[in-house]
Formats: sequence, C-alpha cells, structure tokens
Amino acid sequence: MNAALSWTLAEIAARVGAELRGDAAHRISGLQTLSGAGPEHISFLANPLYRPELSATHAGAVLLRPDDAEGFSGNALVLANPYLAYAQLAALFDRTPRPAAGIHASAVVSESARIDASAAIGPRAVIGDDVEIAAGAVVEAGAVVQARTRIGRDSRIRANAVIYHDCVLGDRVNIHSGAIIGGDGFGFANDKGRWRKIAQIGRVVIHDDVDIGANTTVDRGAIGDTEIHEGVIIDNQVQVAHNVVIGAHTAIAACCGISGSTRIGRYCVLAGGVGLVGHIEIADKVQITGMTMVTKSITAPGSYSSGTAFESSDRWKKTAVRIKQLDEMARRLRDLEREIASLRSAGLAD
Amino acid sequence: MNAALSWTLAEIAARVGAELRGDAAHRISGLQTLSGAGPEHISFLANPLYRPELSATHAGAVLLRPDDAEGFSGNALVLANPYLAYAQLAALFDRTPRPAAGIHASAVVSESARIDASAAIGPRAVIGDDVEIAAGAVVEAGAVVQARTRIGRDSRIRANAVIYHDCVLGDRVNIHSGAIIGGDGFGFANDKGRWRKIAQIGRVVIHDDVDIGANTTVDRGAIGDTEIHEGVIIDNQVQVAHNVVIGAHTAIAACCGISGSTRIGRYCVLAGGVGLVGHIEIADKVQITGMTMVTKSITAPGSYSSGTAFESSDRWKKTAVRIKQLDEMARRLRDLEREIASLRSAGLAD
Amino acid sequence: MNAALSWTLAEIAARVGAELRGDAAHRISGLQTLSGAGPEHISFLANPLYRPELSATHAGAVLLRPDDAEGFSGNALVLANPYLAYAQLAALFDRTPRPAAGIHASAVVSESARIDASAAIGPRAVIGDDVEIAAGAVVEAGAVVQARTRIGRDSRIRANAVIYHDCVLGDRVNIHSGAIIGGDGFGFANDKGRWRKIAQIGRVVIHDDVDIGANTTVDRGAIGDTEIHEGVIIDNQVQVAHNVVIGAHTAIAACCGISGSTRIGRYCVLAGGVGLVGHIEIADKVQITGMTMVTKSITAPGSYSSGTAFESSDRWKKTAVRIKQLDEMARRLRDLEREIASLRSAGLAD
Repeated sequence: MNAALSWTLAEIAARVGAELRGDAAHRISGLQTLSGAGPEHISFLANPLYRPELSATHAGAVLLRPDDAEGFSGNALVLANPYLAYAQLAALFDRTPRPAAGIHASAVVSESARIDASAAIGPRAVIGDDVEIAAGAVVEAGAVVQARTRIGRDSRIRANAVIYHDCVLGDRVNIHSGAIIGGDGFGFANDKGRWRKIAQIGRVVIHDDVDIGANTTVDRGAIGDTEIHEGVIIDNQVQVAHNVVIGAHTAIAACCGISGSTRIGRYCVLAGGVGLVGHIEIADKVQITGMTMVTKSITAPGSYSSGTAFESSDRWKKTAVRIKQLDEMARRLRDLEREIASLRSAGLAD
Repeated sequence: MNAALSWTLAEIAARVGAELRGDAAHRISGLQTLSGAGPEHISFLANPLYRPELSATHAGAVLLRPDDAEGFSGNALVLANPYLAYAQLAALFDRTPRPAAGIHASAVVSESARIDASAAIGPRAVIGDDVEIAAGAVVEAGAVVQARTRIGRDSRIRANAVIYHDCVLGDRVNIHSGAIIGGDGFGFANDKGRWRKIAQIGRVVIHDDVDIGANTTVDRGAIGDTEIHEGVIIDNQVQVAHNVVIGAHTAIAACCGISGSTRIGRYCVLAGGVGLVGHIEIADKVQITGMTMVTKSITAPGSYSSGTAFESSDRWKKTAVRIKQLDEMARRLRDLEREIASLRSAGLAD
Repeated sequence: MNAALSWTLAEIAARVGAELRGDAAHRISGLQTLSGAGPEHISFLANPLYRPELSATHAGAVLLRPDDAEGFSGNALVLANPYLAYAQLAALFDRTPRPAAGIHASAVVSESARIDASAAIGPRAVIGDDVEIAAGAVVEAGAVVQARTRIGRDSRIRANAVIYHDCVLGDRVNIHSGAIIGGDGFGFANDKGRWRKIAQIGRVVIHDDVDIGANTTVDRGAIGDTEIHEGVIIDNQVQVAHNVVIGAHTAIAACCGISGSTRIGRYCVLAGGVGLVGHIEIADKVQITGMTMVTKSITAPGSYSSGTAFESSDRWKKTAVRIKQLDEMARRLRDLEREIASLRSAGLAD
C-alpha cells in the first residue's frame, strides 16, 4: 500500500458489495480492530464475542451483518459475511514490498534458465540450470531455486527459501522464508547396523494456490512424488515427509509432522502440533485437534483427538503414576465385579 | 577472544568481585568444566552434583562458594554466586567472530536505508528500503532485512536470518540464524471450502534484550502487532503465531508452539515442546513442564503439566487400550459402589 | 544422472551382485515402484505387502528374493536383499546437481580460508577466516561457514545452511538446507529475574558419515562440545541442544527435540516427534516410538512409548476428564476392595 492512499466509503462499499449506511464521502486509510480503530480506519464485527466493542468504537466505518447494524449509529457497511469482506480489504492495506520485474544485478541466474520478463528475481537469488519462472512470479532476496524446477505464474518465493531441483510449483503458490522444498526424504537402508543413504529420486509437486509457511519442510519423494494439491494451506514449521499426498483445500497448522507415504484427504483441518505416522490414510473432511497423535488410518469424516489435559504439576505427578497402573486397576475392577457377582448369586444383595 | 590473550587470577577476581585465595599471578587462558580443566583453565562449582569432582580437578582456579572453598587446596575465587560469575567470564573466552563496522562490498543495501557508521553489514546481506540500523548493530552474512524495519543498538542478526518489512527490534536483540521474524500469520477466510488469504498487515515488535534462537519463527500480526517484551529469551524452533504477546523476562525452550492471539505473562518458563492453543491467557510466573498441552487459560502462578510417562512399548500398548476404556471403567466403578452400598444398607457389611 | 544414460540388465546385475533371469541386453533408464514402472524402469519387491503388485507390473526388470522370483515371468534380478540393491541403484538415477569444483565468482571467501582445489564453493556462499574445506567437499549456494570451522572430505553443505564458527565436520557429512549447526545453546543465568546470556564457548563436532536434515538445529556446547558420532542420521526439524552426545549409527526421525547434556547411545532409533529432557542417558539399541515424552534415563535396550491413542473428539473429551479423576478413582477402588474384604471376612462371600 502507498501510505498516502485512501478510499471513500462509497468506493469500499462497491469493492466488497456492501450496503452503505452513512457518509459515502468519508475517507479510509487503514484497517483496525474495533478497539484500536480511529476515524481514518475501517473495522469489522465478525465474531459475536466482540459485539460489546461495537458501541464504543471510534472507527470511521464498520463492516457488519444486518442484525448487528441495527441500532449502530456510525458509518456501516452492511453485508452477509463481514469476515470475508475484511479479508478482501486487508489486501488494500498490505505493505509487503513488491520487487520490480526483472533480474537484480546481484542475482546469479543460469544462462539456461527461462525467466519470464514480468517475473522479479531479487538480490542475491540463485537460479539453477533449466529452471522455469513464469509470468508475474517473484523470487525474493537470497532464495535458491535449483536445476529444472518450475515456478508457476504469480507465485512468490520469499527471502532465503530453498527449492531443490526438479520440483514443480503451480500458479499463485506462496512459499515463505526459510521453507525448504524438495530436500531429501529420510530414506536409508540398514546394512548390518550401518545406514546406507538411498538417493531420493522423486520430486515435490505443488499444485495451484498453495501457501506454505516459514521454515516448513517438504521432502521430495523417494521414487514417486510428494504431492500437495490445489488450495492447501500449510503454516510454519510443518514437516511433510517423502511421498506424502495432501488433498485439495486441506489446512495444516504449525508444527505438525506428517510421516512418509501418508495420504491426507481433501478439506481436512489439522490443528497445531499434530503428528501422523507413516503409511496411513486420512479421509476427506477430517478435523484433528492440536497435538493429537495419529497412529492409524482415519476412515470417516469427523473430529479426532488425543492427549491429556493439563493439571498442576503436583496433581499431574499423581495422575501420571495412576496411568501406568491402569491395566492393573482394570484387572482389580474386574475381580471386584466377580466378587460382587458371587455375593449377589449367594442371594445376599437382594 | 584472541587465543593469545590471558588474564591473571587477580584480574579475574577483580572482574567478578571474588575473594582470591591462592596465586594472584597465575594466568588463565580458558574456561572448562572441573573434569575437563587444566592449569590454564578456570572452572566453577555451582551445582552440588559436581562437588565430588572438585578435589580431583586440575583447573588453574575454581570459582566457588565459601562453604565449598573450605578444604580446597587449589587456587580459589570465592563468591556467593559462582554460576553468575561463570556467566560473566564466559564472555571473555567467546570466539564468535565480530564483523568490522561498515558495509561489506557484497551486501545489497537500499539507498534509502539509514545505517549507522558503527554498524556492520556482512557479506551478501540484503537491506531494504527505509530500513534503520542503529549504532553497533550487526547484520551477518546472507541475512535479509526488509523495508522499513528498525534494528536497535547493538542488536545482532545472525547469518541467513530474515526480518520481514515494517518490524521493530529494540536494543541488544539477538536473532539467531534461520529465524524468520515477521512472516505472514496463518490467516485465511473460508469461502465455500476455499481458503482466501488475509493480508497480514500488523507488525512484529521486539523489545530490548530479547534473544531468539535458530530457526524460530515469529509471525507478524493480522491487524495489530505480535509483541515480545523486554528480556524474553526464546530457544530454537519455537513457533510464535500472529498477535501473540509474550511478557517481559519469560523464557521459552525449544520446539514450543504458541497459537494466535495467546498472551503469556511475565517471568514465565515454558519447557521444551509445550503447545498452547490460541486466544488464551497465561498468568505471570507460570511454569509449564515439557510437552504439556495447554488448552485453556492459566490464571494463577505455579507449575503445570500434562502428558503420560513412558513405559516399555508392550506395557504401553495395554495402558493405551485401558485409557480408552476409562469412561466405561468409571461407570463400572460407580455401579460397584452402588451395589456395595445396597449390600451395606442391607446390614450385611457390619 | 544424465537422462540419456541407460544400463543393460547385465550391467545392473553385475553392479548389485544379482543372479539375472531374463534378457541381459534389456536397457534400463529409470527406477520406479512396481505399479508405476514401465519397460524402461527397474523396480523391486522388498516389502511383502506389495507382492500382489508383482504379477501386474510392467517393469523392465524386478529386483527380488529367490522365493518371490519363483513363478515370476518377467526379467528378474535375484538376490538376498532387494531393498539394499534398490538403495545402491537409486544413486544411478539421482539427478541432484553437482557443482563444478572451484570457487564461484559470486562467493565471498576469506583469504585465510584453505579450500581444496577439488572442492566446490557455490554462488553467494560465504566462507569465513581460517575455514578449512577438504577435497571433494561442496558448499552450495548461499551457505555460510564461519571462522575456523573444518569441513571434511566429500562432505556437502546444501543451499542456505549455516555452520557457525569453530565447528568440526568429518568426511562424507551431509547437511541439508536450512540446517543451523553451532548456534548458541540456550544458556542463561538468572540474575534477580533477568536472564544474563552465557557465552557458548564449546563447539559442535560431527563425525564421519553423518546426515542432517533440512532446518535441523544443532547447538554448540556451553563449555565442552556437542557431539554427533559416526554414521548418525538425523531427519528434518530436529533440535539438538548444547552438549548433547549422540552415539554412532543412531537414527533420529523428524521433529524430535533433545534437551541439553542428554546422551543417546549407539544404534538407537527415535521415531518422529520424540522429546527428551536434559541430563539423561539413553542406553544403546533403544527404540522410542513417535511423540514419546522421555523424562528420565533409559538403562536397557528395548522399545519404549508414551502418549494416548486418538478417539473421536466427543469420546476423547470424556476420557480427558476421566484421566484427571484417576487418582480419585484409584482411591475409590481401594476403598471398595476393603469393603469387599470386610464382607468376605464376615463370612458372607463363601
């Protein structure tokens, strides 16, 4: 965003398709929360939790639903989905620097690489042999794209990310800084106690509209490909092992680890810190809550969890001991039931 | 450290404020553990566990408490807190290379950046438009600092770290290699099954004297800021999501994940691998043991834990099955209690 | 691999020491899974799970065991360990780019560094003062090797990895992109609530034939060294804290966290996401299953586990509540046993 830019409420209402109630000429130059906003800001009310903040806001205008708009005296942009409208508007106020098209003088680009004239290759980026970079794509400062990899249209590789050789990234793919795409899978053969490295000769294939967070790692396939389908979003510090397949429109929050050859369905949501063992399948529309340990396939949609709730450490120490006694407790419970049954059969309990 | 440098025990005693018992002219050129030390080394005894090593040490001198010094025949530097004195002395023997002030010829620095003459910009570093780098700060090789970010006095950005645009780092902030500060928070609106990216227009604000470990990620705020207060120390591979606030002097060990909008208090200690869900508050002076899953706010100081203690895998398999039967076991236990009660009420148990 | 290259089955059989049954002149130019292979590919059958795919494969040849070869009508390369043969052959088809020997014009290399003429220093790599790089070693694009570190023969530092000063890497060590070797350990002394940084003056010493995954971090020792012994393999995003020692030929899968001063034995296998507290010892030949929390030393070989199996979230909520009631349940169980005992002693149960 150019900080000097601003928009009238009429312009903003048109952009998001809202009904405008208030001063159409009022100018907006920023976006803020209800409590943080001033007259130059637009804000929004999506989560009912924040409704109490509406009456006190100093925002120049608020995006809200028809029922929330009733009784609100400020400038209102009324529409069915204020959160989605906020998502659209945020882009107006995004100050992420946009490198100019062309190849920076300090970049190191192979003569055999094919870089579209509208693509931007930043300072110190390194582009290997036979790499293809499509129109509108950006490779930021210090990023490395190795031989024969293809980067699709309007994709963006942020500073210091690395894409290994022979990978394929679709259009509008966003790879954040420090992410490593196409590193070797963890493949070794054990030869009388010694680990012999197995060359990882597959690729990583990332389809259109995928977003991958900072310091996430996606390993190349051992033989076939590791594949991330259209519209998948992956947060920071996620590990995707070799030959994993992630179905379209699935969301994976930070710190998840997905072991080799596991297949995750479409429209799934993994919360933070979830771990999946290898060689399992997760059905479509599965939700997994944070830090869950998934040790076998999940065949039906729904929400799944594991883990223990926290307690004070003193209480937890007792609980932890009891957990280890559980099998014995279960047997003692069974013994008691038998004793009671024998008491009862002796006619004494009636 | 210049390896040729050495100090007399008199000099060292003065530096740490210790009482010297022994040869004031003895020269020290290194620091070692009690068992690893030779006559050229100084060592220390802080943890009582290592007391048996004291009599056998070959150290040229030992930092120790008055009660430990009794009966020790070697050179002793006696003071109340030997660990803190060790911490002070370690800096003498630190060989971390210190880049010369000035901008390396291979760095790429925007003309609009304001770099103090005493700052050091290393080889291949990239500094964006309108960045400010204060006196004494160091940006090492390959690090990237994007537009309008401010780096305070005597801060140090280690090799290949990335600081995104519009962030603020205070004085004496240390960012280790591979850390990514200011990457986009994981913010998407779901539009009929498709994820629409929400531009993350907030910042990361890091106050003075903060230390951030290798490959740690701190996301920029969605609207407001992600904020790390004075004196916070964060280890490697920690994930700090958008709009998290971490209170002053809190310590966070490696591999923790802190979800969006969560607020952690002051003087807290999170051990390794702890996970916190989003939108909760952790009070001041809370300690959380390793790998704990924190699913709701913690309102009182104290120590908190979750997780199950390890067993042999054979035993654990039984335990894991029993845990899933727990709800049924609890109901059977209740049934037995009722049966016993009815037996008792029948007068049979007396 | 040069994609134009191919080998006859006779050549391949000789290379892996297999008995050839079929067309010795048939040419192979790639390696694939049984289901993915065509006539130009060689495949293998190692896991009995895939035996049903054998009869339907279109592979030009299959590596298999004598008993699997019976009744197979295609070209067969028969030998005792098809998986190991696959591991050998995969290297033939590895297309990982190999930089030419010499120092790239864009690299920044200290005049005091000693680089063997057969080593390759890639674009924009930065090599510090007095670094030693042995014969055949590769430092890829953007990697940083700081002062006085030694890199052994035929070792390879992948793009944008960082090796801090004064570390020692043996021969044939492979460090993947984004890995940070020798960052400061998390060492601070608490001085009346404030954390005082303790300079980390030890090193990281990595012995021969070690493989370290993408974005893994290995901290330098506080005083002595962090040490990774011969033949150890470490996957992505593993955290190895200061003064950890990892015994020879141990394998550590992704996302494990190993706290300070912990010692792991030889020939151990840690599955993904395992966490180890500090200052413990793990015996040789210990296996630890995924996401296990290890809070004390393990003194005997064997397999160890912790964690709770996942359930539907609805059921898990009940289970999680019951776990917190366990200590009370155990006491109620004990009470019931006493009551039953008193009933029995009253002669009523016989």
